[in-house]
Amino acid sequence: MQGYWTQHFLLPGQEHPQARAVAESLEYARESIATLVGCEAFEIVFTGGGTEANNLAILGAAGKLRRGHVVISSLEHESVCDTAAMLLQMGWDVDTIQPESNGQVDPERFLASFRDDTKLVCLQSANPILGTIQPVREVADLCHSRGIALHCDATQSFGKIAVDVAELRADTVAISGHKFYGPKGTGALYVRRGYPLTPITFGESREMGLRPGAENVPGWIGLGAAASLASKCCDEASVAMTGMRDHLAASIRKVISPVTILCEETDRLSNTLTVELPVEARQVQRAARELIFATAMSATPPDEMTRCLRAIGRSEHQISTAVRFSIGWTTSREQIDRAVERLAEAVEVTSHA
Amino acid sequence: MQGYWTQHFLLPGQEHPQARAVAESLEYARESIATLVGCEAFEIVFTGGGTEANNLAILGAAGKLRRGHVVISSLEHESVCDTAAMLLQMGWDVDTIQPESNGQVDPERFLASFRDDTKLVCLQSANPILGTIQPVREVADLCHSRGIALHCDATQSFGKIAVDVAELRADTVAISGHKFYGPKGTGALYVRRGYPLTPITFGESREMGLRPGAENVPGWIGLGAAASLASKCCDEASVAMTGMRDHLAASIRKVISPVTILCEETDRLSNTLTVELPVEARQVQRAARELIFATAMSATPPDEMTRCLRAIGRSEHQISTAVRFSIGWTTSREQIDRAVERLAEAVEVTSHA
Repeated sequence: MQGYWTQHFLLPGQEHPQARAVAESLEYARESIATLVGCEAFEIVFTGGGTEANNLAILGAAGKLRRGHVVISSLEHESVCDTAAMLLQMGWDVDTIQPESNGQVDPERFLASFRDDTKLVCLQSANPILGTIQPVREVADLCHSRGIALHCDATQSFGKIAVDVAELRADTVAISGHKFYGPKGTGALYVRRGYPLTPITFGESREMGLRPGAENVPGWIGLGAAASLASKCCDEASVAMTGMRDHLAASIRKVISPVTILCEETDRLSNTLTVELPVEARQVQRAARELIFATAMSATPPDEMTRCLRAIGRSEHQISTAVRFSIGWTTSREQIDRAVERLAEAVEVTSHA
Repeated sequence: MQGYWTQHFLLPGQEHPQARAVAESLEYARESIATLVGCEAFEIVFTGGGTEANNLAILGAAGKLRRGHVVISSLEHESVCDTAAMLLQMGWDVDTIQPESNGQVDPERFLASFRDDTKLVCLQSANPILGTIQPVREVADLCHSRGIALHCDATQSFGKIAVDVAELRADTVAISGHKFYGPKGTGALYVRRGYPLTPITFGESREMGLRPGAENVPGWIGLGAAASLASKCCDEASVAMTGMRDHLAASIRKVISPVTILCEETDRLSNTLTVELPVEARQVQRAARELIFATAMSATPPDEMTRCLRAIGRSEHQISTAVRFSIGWTTSREQIDRAVERLAEAVEVTSHA
């Protein structure tokens, strides 16, 4: 990215030979993302992040359609739920499908919700809180046999499991840079060739007419580099992270009791582990300040973690004891052992407080 | 920015002490921008660029209002014109005010366009092609005495002349990072305290509820640093650039004939010089490949340069001979002398071709 801040300042659409060199670098980045997701380069639209990609996919699809019916899962990210809520304000009907207690949605529930005027379904590839992998392809097939479009928020999956849009069969797929070691403030949307989408912001025609504004050249080149790395490392990293996550789960079980590992039997991302502790999670957090983990933050309005845990039927008490750990590509066994040691101490301190 | 890619990965809203440190750095950046534009920090909303800021200001203002009438100048950037065109599609009326031949709009023309249902006026602080400074304050006063809101796209002015929102009296002001040595993919919108604006994308509540999505922490911290630098250097840089621009104009006049310097008598930004040459500009560009300057790119649809030159009454032939030069903070007399020498050679070659 550095060279594009310190030397190559031109924008790709400008008319100088130096600008054409920038354009080529940017197209190379676009190809790296296309390789990661298994599509053609021209099917990738750069955005300012996953939230913008989800907004573009949903509002941009609605732009070409008459009002109708949209169906989302209740496990979706705020940028999907709240954009669907905006469609509701615009006169659309919105149905929300609850997951099963194992953290996966049942394709039959989507099927049962379909109406003659159902236009769009949104289903994430995997849940960021539970790690549970969703049956996107099955739901996409159900959709397409009825002429319904499917948007998949896959921001959580890249860099953790291989995602191939041809296998997912989604019409649009959202990508977030900082979720797989790319720069913050970058993302992309896969838009299937020929899929009708309108821009949601307006200005000079860039990004196949779908996203105006000066290109974030350094950021998107960084996103391309992250995609290229994820293409190369993802399989190996996924195996390593699965081992580390299972070691983390086993170690927690060994030293803290009782604990509940959520959705343990479900097909999950390798990097996510959500555990209910015997004590209140926020207190453990205060007692173990060197550990960074997520807890449910607020009940009203519920944050994403609260929302997802409620959706799979956890009680308010259980939710208050839940902590979510994330494993990275470089997380080591030693780091996990130290983390579990500190966690056990914090639980001990908390339970005697 | 570097530290926020290599060490401080957390997002400002997260619950760890390290995240609070990131939040503080980001608020410091926001204050730097507030200092540059003369407002309170909470009146600054970070965006992904100037185009997004203009879209947020216009569509976000329309979101709270019944359909009505919006007035823009014909010199506005595409992100203003095309967003106004979207309002037109949504059932609004849009009027476009032509500038005078000196490159400035006459406040009286705005006044004459006002109707009982006029809700919003958009006027840029300065034109990027001609450099001409617009009477934003006069138009804002006319607007406010009638309860009309004023949005000012000031992306072209920061780093070139002091912009103070209290003086401009605009309700919203768009800022673009890469226009004043900040990172590409960053921008901001000043939103006057109490001004009603709705978000245009949806998701987790960030940026005072006006802009969801993970914060572009490194980018916005870079934007803050650029703002801080612009606050310190702008006055001095402006004087220096004015000297350089006038030297450029005088040097061109000395060696190329005939030339027309556009809007020369009008109050202009110090960094912009647009000149009509005796030969076709695109040919000069091909003959002087080491020089980077702008020419009018396309007639249908017209690019911004064509549009602005037409708006002040230049003929199609005149437009085809126009070149725009930009001066930077560090442009030297020697660089200008070399550029003019190369330009004169290229004009000479072209006129004999």
